[in-house]
Amino acid sequence: MNYQRFFEEAIDQLHAERRYRVFADLERIAGKFPRAIWRSNGRAEEITVWCSNDYLGMGQHPDVIASFQEAAGRMGSGAGGTRNISGTNHPLVELELELADLHAKEAALVFTSGFVSNEASISTIARLLPNCLIISDELNHASMIEGVRRSGAEKKIFRHNDVAHLESLLQAAGRERAKLIVFESVYSMDGDIAPIEAIADLADKYNAMTYIDEVHAVGMYGPRGGGITEREGLADRIDIIEGTLAKAFGTLGGYISGNKAVIDAVRSYAPGFIFTTALPPALAAATTTSIRHLKNSQTERDAQKRQAERTKQVLADAGLPVMNSATHIVPVLVGDPELCKMASDRLLGVHGIYIQPINYPTVPRGTERLRITPTPFHSDELIAELQAALVETWDALGIPYGAAGRPSVTENERIVSLLVPKSGG
Amino acid sequence: MNYQRFFEEAIDQLHAERRYRVFADLERIAGKFPRAIWRSNGRAEEITVWCSNDYLGMGQHPDVIASFQEAAGRMGSGAGGTRNISGTNHPLVELELELADLHAKEAALVFTSGFVSNEASISTIARLLPNCLIISDELNHASMIEGVRRSGAEKKIFRHNDVAHLESLLQAAGRERAKLIVFESVYSMDGDIAPIEAIADLADKYNAMTYIDEVHAVGMYGPRGGGITEREGLADRIDIIEGTLAKAFGTLGGYISGNKAVIDAVRSYAPGFIFTTALPPALAAATTTSIRHLKNSQTERDAQKRQAERTKQVLADAGLPVMNSATHIVPVLVGDPELCKMASDRLLGVHGIYIQPINYPTVPRGTERLRITPTPFHSDELIAELQAALVETWDALGIPYGAAGRPSVTENERIVSLLVPKSGG
Repeated sequence: MNYQRFFEEAIDQLHAERRYRVFADLERIAGKFPRAIWRSNGRAEEITVWCSNDYLGMGQHPDVIASFQEAAGRMGSGAGGTRNISGTNHPLVELELELADLHAKEAALVFTSGFVSNEASISTIARLLPNCLIISDELNHASMIEGVRRSGAEKKIFRHNDVAHLESLLQAAGRERAKLIVFESVYSMDGDIAPIEAIADLADKYNAMTYIDEVHAVGMYGPRGGGITEREGLADRIDIIEGTLAKAFGTLGGYISGNKAVIDAVRSYAPGFIFTTALPPALAAATTTSIRHLKNSQTERDAQKRQAERTKQVLADAGLPVMNSATHIVPVLVGDPELCKMASDRLLGVHGIYIQPINYPTVPRGTERLRITPTPFHSDELIAELQAALVETWDALGIPYGAAGRPSVTENERIVSLLVPKSGG
Repeated sequence: MNYQRFFEEAIDQLHAERRYRVFADLERIAGKFPRAIWRSNGRAEEITVWCSNDYLGMGQHPDVIASFQEAAGRMGSGAGGTRNISGTNHPLVELELELADLHAKEAALVFTSGFVSNEASISTIARLLPNCLIISDELNHASMIEGVRRSGAEKKIFRHNDVAHLESLLQAAGRERAKLIVFESVYSMDGDIAPIEAIADLADKYNAMTYIDEVHAVGMYGPRGGGITEREGLADRIDIIEGTLAKAFGTLGGYISGNKAVIDAVRSYAPGFIFTTALPPALAAATTTSIRHLKNSQTERDAQKRQAERTKQVLADAGLPVMNSATHIVPVLVGDPELCKMASDRLLGVHGIYIQPINYPTVPRGTERLRITPTPFHSDELIAELQAALVETWDALGIPYGAAGRPSVTENERIVSLLVPKSGG
C-alpha cells in the first residue's frame, strides 16, 4: 500500500469526473452585503454574492455585530469547555430560552452546527426508542441521512412529499411500534415545501413522533420567524423542530426544540453534543439579538420575499429557465454539468457575479443548476445586472432557454453513498 | 408506545444512577480569568474556575479579543455558507496556512469542532483506503471512537500506550494491508503521554499510516506550541496531526494537518466537513492571532508549567491524593462517585471554587476524581485557597488522603457503548 499515491489517485479521480471543488476565497464586506472581495491567483476584486445562505443579511446587521463585539469584549473569545465542564455560558442559556420561545416549545438545545444537530438528535432519539422505525423523506439532507444511518435503526424511505406513500409505511408498521418521521419544511435545492399538516395528521393517526428540519425557513417564514410550522400554525403538531443559526440568523450553530423530556434525553445521551466545546458567548449573544430582531421586524422578510419574486420574474422575462419554487430559492436550470461549471466560472470571471454551480450528486443528473438566493440587499439594480449577465452567459455558452418545470426525481438517483456529497454542500 | 413517558423514564434512570448532569451557568469575565459569574437559583456570585480547557487563558488575551472584534466589524458575524457555497472566508484560508505551518505540514483543514474533525477525518480516511485496518489505543477519546465506528472498517484495540501489543497487531496484519494507527499525545483524564517515537518506528516498520490527536497539547508544548510532536521533534514522523482551536488557542473549532493529498481527500469526501457552514471570519482571525502569539511567546507556556507544578506540590504537601501526571493536568483521586459529586458541590457552594466531578463512565469505577487544570492565571494565592478548600472538603466529607498512583485500567472497564459518555465531556 502506497498511501501517498492512493490519496493522489483519489483526487485525480475527482478531477477526471469534473467533481473536484475549488473553494472561492471570499471576504464579505459588512455594510455592503452582498458585496465581497474575491481573491484568486494573487488578484483581489469586488464581486456580488448571489448564493449566500445569509438569507436576510443579518450577518452584517449593526445590532448583531455590536452584540457580538460587546460579548467578546466582556467574556472573551471562547467558551473554554464542553457544556458539562465549564463551557455552559450565560448567553448560551439565554439563547436556548429564546429558541424554545421562538417555536413555542418547552426547551431547546444548541449544537455547534446544523449538521451535528440533525445527526446527533436523530441518531440519539431513534437509538433510545426500542425497535424504532425511522420513516424518512427521500430528499432529506445529508445530515439527516447521517443521523438515520448512525442510529442503527431500521429505516424506510418515502417518496418526496408523498403522503400516501408515507401512510402505507406507517400502516405497515402498526400503531404500537415506535416510529420517527423525519422530514424538512423547505427543501433547499428545489425550494418546495412539505405537506406538514397532512404528515402531522398521519403521525397522530398512527402514533408516530415527528421531526422537522426548518433550517431553510427559520427567521424567514412565520410572523415571528418561527418557520413554516409557525406560518401554518402547526408548531404544536410537530414533536421536534430543528433549525440553524447559520443561515437567516447570520451566525453559527444548529439547534433542536421540543418538550423537556426529549430535549433532556438528547442533551444527556448524544456524544456529538456531550463531547464538544460549547458555542462561544459572543456567538450566542449575537444570535439572540438576531432572533429577537426578527421576531419583531417584518422588514427583512417582506423585502426578501419581494426581491425573490422580482428575481424570478425578471429572469423569466428574459426567457431564462427559472425552475418552479414556492420559496425564496431561485433555481435556474442548466441541465449539464460542464456547462453549469462554465456558466459559474464565466459569471464570476467576466461579470463579477458569484453563483456556485450545483451538480450531481447534489442534484439529479440532467438537472444541474444555478441556485440563486436573493436577499433584502439584492436591489433592483443588482437584479437587472444579474439578468444581463445570465443572458450574456447563456448566449456565449449556448445554454438552452425556455421554461423549466420541476424535473422528476427518481428514487434511484437519490441513493447516494456516504462518501458522495448530497444537497447543501 | 408512549413517547413522552418513555423519555421521562430515560431521564429518571439517569437520576437514579446519579449520572444526571446539571450544567453550571457561567459568565467568564474577560480580564479577570479564571474568575466567572455563576448563576444558580436566581442568585449570581463570583467564583474561580479550576477546570477550564482554556488552558493558557488565551480566550481573554487582549490581542485575540481585538482581532475577534475587528474582523466581526469588518466582515460580519457569520460565514454565510458552507465551504463550497460562499462560506470560505479569507481569514479561514489564512488560518489553515497558519496551522499547516505550525505543524510543518503541507496543508491543514479546519472543522467547526474537534469532535467533528476526528470523527470526519478518521472515518473518511479509513473508508477510502481499501480494506483498511484501524488500530486504536484503548483510551482514545469518544470522537475518535465515533470516527472508527463510522468508518465501517475493521478495528483492533491496543492496550493503552502498550507498544508491544501494538506491534503484535501490526505484525498480524502484515505490511501489505492498509493500516491506520490512531492515538493521542496527551491523554486528558490521566495526563500521561504516548510513546510517539516508538509508535512512529513501528508504523515505518509495518507500513502503517499514523493519526495523532494533540488537542490537549497544541499551544502548550513545543517551542512554537506545535504540541508534543514538535517538542520531541517527531511532527514529520506522523502522517496526520489533529488539534483543537477551542482549548489552548481559546476560540472554537478543530483541524487536521498533513500532506496535501490526504487533506484534500478529507476535504473532498467527508460529509461532516462538506455539509457544514464554515467557521465565522471573526473566529478564524482571532485564532490566527492566538496561534501566532503562542508561536513567539514562551511566557504563557512557562507560567502554566510553573503553576501546574506548584499546584501538584501544594496539594501533595497537604496529603491530598494527587495522581501521577506528566502534564499540566492535575487529577485528584476521590475514588467514589457520590463523594466526588458532593466534593464538587461543596467546593462550589461553600468555597466558590468550580471543579466538575469526573465519574464513571468518563473514568473507570473506583477512580472518580477531580480534574484540575491550572493556567498561567491561577496565582499562588489562588493555589493556596484551593489547597485550603480541598482540605476542608476532604475533612468534612471524610474522603481518604494519601498518595495516589495511577490506577490500573482494565480493558473491560473501557468498553463503553455509543450512548455512554466517555472522556472529555
